[in-house]
Amino acid sequence: MRILLLNANTSDFVTQKVATAARNFASADTQIIPVTASFGARIIATRTELAIASHACVDLIAQHADGCDAVVIAVSYDVALLAAREMLSVPVVGITEAALLSASMLGTRIGVVMFGPRVLPIYQELAASYGLSSRIAGWRAVDNDAPYAAGDQSKVDRLAVAAANDLVERDGCEVIVLAGAVMAGVPARLQAQVSVPLVEGVSCALLQAELLHRLKPAKATTGSLAALPAREHVGLSSALGKKLSGDKT
Amino acid sequence: MRILLLNANTSDFVTQKVATAARNFASADTQIIPVTASFGARIIATRTELAIASHACVDLIAQHADGCDAVVIAVSYDVALLAAREMLSVPVVGITEAALLSASMLGTRIGVVMFGPRVLPIYQELAASYGLSSRIAGWRAVDNDAPYAAGDQSKVDRLAVAAANDLVERDGCEVIVLAGAVMAGVPARLQAQVSVPLVEGVSCALLQAELLHRLKPAKATTGSLAALPAREHVGLSSALGKKLSGDKT
Amino acid sequence: MRILLLNANTSDFVTQKVATAARNFASADTQIIPVTASFGARIIATRTELAIASHACVDLIAQHADGCDAVVIAVSYDVALLAAREMLSVPVVGITEAALLSASMLGTRIGVVMFGPRVLPIYQELAASYGLSSRIAGWRAVDNDAPYAAGDQSKVDRLAVAAANDLVERDGCEVIVLAGAVMAGVPARLQAQVSVPLVEGVSCALLQAELLHRLKPAKATTGSLAALPAREHVGLSSALGKKLSGDKT
Amino acid sequence: MRILLLNANTSDFVTQKVATAARNFASADTQIIPVTASFGARIIATRTELAIASHACVDLIAQHADGCDAVVIAVSYDVALLAAREMLSVPVVGITEAALLSASMLGTRIGVVMFGPRVLPIYQELAASYGLSSRIAGWRAVDNDAPYAAGDQSKVDRLAVAAANDLVERDGCEVIVLAGAVMAGVPARLQAQVSVPLVEGVSCALLQAELLHRLKPAKATTGSLAALPAREHVGLSSALGKKLSGDKT
Amino acid sequence: MRILLLNANTSDFVTQKVATAARNFASADTQIIPVTASFGARIIATRTELAIASHACVDLIAQHADGCDAVVIAVSYDVALLAAREMLSVPVVGITEAALLSASMLGTRIGVVMFGPRVLPIYQELAASYGLSSRIAGWRAVDNDAPYAAGDQSKVDRLAVAAANDLVERDGCEVIVLAGAVMAGVPARLQAQVSVPLVEGVSCALLQAELLHRLKPAKATTGSLAALPAREHVGLSSALGKKLSGDKT
Amino acid sequence: MRILLLNANTSDFVTQKVATAARNFASADTQIIPVTASFGARIIATRTELAIASHACVDLIAQHADGCDAVVIAVSYDVALLAAREMLSVPVVGITEAALLSASMLGTRIGVVMFGPRVLPIYQELAASYGLSSRIAGWRAVDNDAPYAAGDQSKVDRLAVAAANDLVERDGCEVIVLAGAVMAGVPARLQAQVSVPLVEGVSCALLQAELLHRLKPAKATTGSLAALPAREHVGLSSALGKKLSGDKT
Repeated sequence: MRILLLNANTSDFVTQKVATAARNFASADTQIIPVTASFGARIIATRTELAIASHACVDLIAQHADGCDAVVIAVSYDVALLAAREMLSVPVVGITEAALLSASMLGTRIGVVMFGPRVLPIYQELAASYGLSSRIAGWRAVDNDAPYAAGDQSKVDRLAVAAANDLVERDGCEVIVLAGAVMAGVPARLQAQVSVPLVEGVSCALLQAELLHRLKPAKATTGSLAALPAREHVGLSSALGKKLSGDKT
Repeated sequence: MRILLLNANTSDFVTQKVATAARNFASADTQIIPVTASFGARIIATRTELAIASHACVDLIAQHADGCDAVVIAVSYDVALLAAREMLSVPVVGITEAALLSASMLGTRIGVVMFGPRVLPIYQELAASYGLSSRIAGWRAVDNDAPYAAGDQSKVDRLAVAAANDLVERDGCEVIVLAGAVMAGVPARLQAQVSVPLVEGVSCALLQAELLHRLKPAKATTGSLAALPAREHVGLSSALGKKLSGDKT
Repeated sequence: MRILLLNANTSDFVTQKVATAARNFASADTQIIPVTASFGARIIATRTELAIASHACVDLIAQHADGCDAVVIAVSYDVALLAAREMLSVPVVGITEAALLSASMLGTRIGVVMFGPRVLPIYQELAASYGLSSRIAGWRAVDNDAPYAAGDQSKVDRLAVAAANDLVERDGCEVIVLAGAVMAGVPARLQAQVSVPLVEGVSCALLQAELLHRLKPAKATTGSLAALPAREHVGLSSALGKKLSGDKT
Repeated sequence: MRILLLNANTSDFVTQKVATAARNFASADTQIIPVTASFGARIIATRTELAIASHACVDLIAQHADGCDAVVIAVSYDVALLAAREMLSVPVVGITEAALLSASMLGTRIGVVMFGPRVLPIYQELAASYGLSSRIAGWRAVDNDAPYAAGDQSKVDRLAVAAANDLVERDGCEVIVLAGAVMAGVPARLQAQVSVPLVEGVSCALLQAELLHRLKPAKATTGSLAALPAREHVGLSSALGKKLSGDKT
Repeated sequence: MRILLLNANTSDFVTQKVATAARNFASADTQIIPVTASFGARIIATRTELAIASHACVDLIAQHADGCDAVVIAVSYDVALLAAREMLSVPVVGITEAALLSASMLGTRIGVVMFGPRVLPIYQELAASYGLSSRIAGWRAVDNDAPYAAGDQSKVDRLAVAAANDLVERDGCEVIVLAGAVMAGVPARLQAQVSVPLVEGVSCALLQAELLHRLKPAKATTGSLAALPAREHVGLSSALGKKLSGDKT
Repeated sequence: MRILLLNANTSDFVTQKVATAARNFASADTQIIPVTASFGARIIATRTELAIASHACVDLIAQHADGCDAVVIAVSYDVALLAAREMLSVPVVGITEAALLSASMLGTRIGVVMFGPRVLPIYQELAASYGLSSRIAGWRAVDNDAPYAAGDQSKVDRLAVAAANDLVERDGCEVIVLAGAVMAGVPARLQAQVSVPLVEGVSCALLQAELLHRLKPAKATTGSLAALPAREHVGLSSALGKKLSGDKT
């Protein structure tokens, strides 16, 4: 199968890092098609950049989703997730959604470690939008952006481990989610230092996308996720405009 | 004072209708500056169009908010509301947010009447994001889009009144919100036929924007609504790009 | 317009302090009519005193609300708020309600600083009654009652600032409410020392009362806030008794 | 033991009806001391009357609670319940609180039948204040006030049974609370016609008051329910004034 | 009356300790019939042992409940509580349920002190299942199992007092539940050192069982707690098998 | 990989039906090992039978889980799910949990159709225990047990379709879960008649078990899901007793 791996950041470094990790998790016969947003922030880190990215994300889908069997939105804010589900007949999975749902099958009280205190509320709003707030027993923001670049990760690793252990000890967490696309592959590196399971979103989302593809769910024909009706619009890219016009050619 | 009235639809008809209504509600010394999105759907009615509109909305702000004293987002999905608050030092109000908050000072159990069953879940998610789900005792979707065009409104008026009265009788609602920017001015027309207060968002948001302007709230310097840090980006309009670059000139 | 400013304490000092502040916030053509409860505690600080004040409050309304265009309940417990809405056809606003609702348009996670640990649970119950518990990310009780008297406020100011900053740092609050009628005017004094917006209830309530007056909401004719039906009663003040008898003269 | 049975209505008919029922439920060695409010509505049926009754209730306690071992607030709005707990060292129980708590040991999903649609929201707010909203699966308001007078109850009985059965069938309720002090003794009369347990508050509250008396709970010395500190006040009845002054003689 | 006191542990020491305490709380004419599980863990301390105990519990009921007027499940996980209610026509009370409900009539914000950090999440899940999570303002796990054996309790007493006081000071708790059957009798010993009421479950459950017996609630004939329908089964004890076969002899 | 498929009913018919369906969903290299409880109800349909089944379930695990790579609890009450997670180092998935989590990636508002009104509350309690109540917009109980036997399914199919469509139309559901192990394979048969995706638990759980196996999550060494400590016990099967004794041989 073919999985479109959407990076709504405009940073090729992140796309490549995530795609490499994704290929490690995917089945042998799964082809990963990584794409990078063509406009917006290099690394999304504000609400404004996220508002832009939601457009970038549906634009990427209009351009690249044809012929794919599933889509993974590889930005930890799960940007435009429901819009993508509306646009497409194939499954769409967000990495933070997938991490939280998978974590909820591995432990009771979930702890979340994320990077960058400024965006912590955005993650909390995201979890609330999934109806999962009551499952999350603690949050920790690590103030370090080393994972977004190449180079030594030992300091940020120590901070992440400390945050995870603090969630276990003080908040009684029984499973930890490391939030962020750049956490792909990190649980394996840090698991030995934490007493409860560590998960991250890229691996979970890849696997959930494969799972949903095998489940062959029907596409809704009613409701807010039914296929796009043909609508009038202006000023969009040719691919996105065509999608909104209901042009199936 | 000057209030930027943002229509994230690309329909001038709606902009003019809402601006005319807004001028009726505003103080004598308030100047309304209506702007229309330059790209996206004529009338937003899907999640995908909303994802596009969130970019259109921050783009409009980058282009037009300078020199304004407050912003009203005159699309009932309150698109990009928190992004706008982050971008600006002046108050920003969404019309559905304002309607719900004002309604909560007029009645106990709130009922919401909206137009178009397809988007009902989007309104429910919006109310949940404000932490107000428990205040809303009932929802009704009217399947009629007459308010989005000129012409006879008598049929849709009858449907809206029936929906409101049903919320009062069956769900015990004690105040009704008519959701949608095109409901501006409608409560006055229908109030006599409904036994509890009717409110809509444009009037509420205009007045809340004036109120917050008088309150002179500080701009946060920490947290997810602090001013945008300078960030790298690509492919944005000149105005929006300048905003993201932290260029204050 | 005329706004009745109700102090359900029996302390003229507080009434005058609040009325002076209120006049600063009000529009030029708004007349503030401050009234003080005729029975009950000098300063309400227990549940028992609050139970008495709810009677004092409806009694004040029966005596003074005729001819007023709106009412502000200037006691931070918002005592008898829904009863007042039931009694009157004009808008009624509570100061803590107004502060919380206004704050929710200025920030995401709300922090509340109040004075007197004993009454903290009462504020928490009040916020819950508004359905707003999930919006409030932290509470701090300052154990100091200097604001309730003339004299040096520098120590309590320091405590309030420390509490606010702690809410920002430890609980991720993005807007702070200073609870208590005697906080009128205080945000301006302390804002420079806190990194997120500070609001208090008297200014918010005054402005919301003016707003609702301009909105001209209908009076409910059904439900728990409809006009009082004529009822038999005994032992009330002449003004309140007349209200309950349904005597409109 | 001696239980003060507080009727915050000013109707002796209700007091006598409730006292008679209470004596049937009480232990042989329990003495019931019924008292009636000296001011306020004959039968509380509005929010305004409830605001008055909260004062009447604490006044009754100041006058009559000395020497009693427990207090039952025999008004279904549980008026001034927490104030009474603050004033006294002996247990205080509200009839609706007791009915809901007892019901929750008899069934899973609770249904509530009450009398008078106007006050339904007040009951819903009361249940929410106890944190019990999620336990209540349905509400029905019967529009008939026959229970508040002597005379034929057959029609209201039929309506109550129909409401209870509808809660079972449509809302899956597994235990039913008949709300209202005048429901004392009614479950026995109607149980045969309803397939799940029926309970009402007077019997439950009487028994819970006896239970708590036997449990001999300590009086809090800290927090919002600690004994009243001595406070300045004006205009209260001699008994209540003495209580607030901290005069223990 | 006769109360069956179920210990789903297989430890006679605990059964005797709890039975002795129970006899102190019970009315003079109440006969306590203590029974101990015949299979499973000596002291339940894991989820697996709890899964076994739920069978042991319904088996004990099948063997011993005939002729009893009420049942108390004297294991603090309230194991098989709803199953027991389904099996029997007489009231069934769990000790943690009873403690939480009784506590909610004694204070506002409840704190819970329990023994053994490993099982803290199980208590939290139990409280959530009663819909009471919002009433509980804090939890503390004491890591000491002295109460499960004879011998010096002074150290665990100090730890419990410290935990209770911390709940009062840091979390604003106004009543404390000591969770665990072996806490029977302990509140009297420790109350003097804590400023808010202390309760435990065995006394509360005993008294609630007596209360419900006096209330004479009907047995549901519909719903999930109606009497067991006759069902096919294999491999059960003779008593339990007879119950499931619908054999009433 | 080897997946232990646990049927906690004592009905071989159901085990075979579910195992056959499971083999259809599983990967080519997955071996399904179906086991049937050795004691308890033929078909679990009461709370009492569920209490017995929780023991039967952990007993089956003790006997059969060695050498398996994952476990699926193929009873729709997800009986003993957390106990199983505690006992084992390999992933354990419940079929209703898996269906709800998978459904939440396919739609927004979830509807649940189940069979047998008596047990509806048990499903609602289960969904609440997962923290998912707010995701579920409607429930329907079909009163027909044809799926539990061979023979004509056309009538129950019609009822299930009608229930699903009613959830879509009246409750706005956008994805439907058919609850019950015997629903394995049914979505494919009925999907054409319902306008939103249909899912059931056996396929979801099988696939989630394979997914979690590939994810290789760590086993917790702290908390309520850590490996069983060695404990004293009596009266258990030899396999289960060995597990509880901490005997690893």
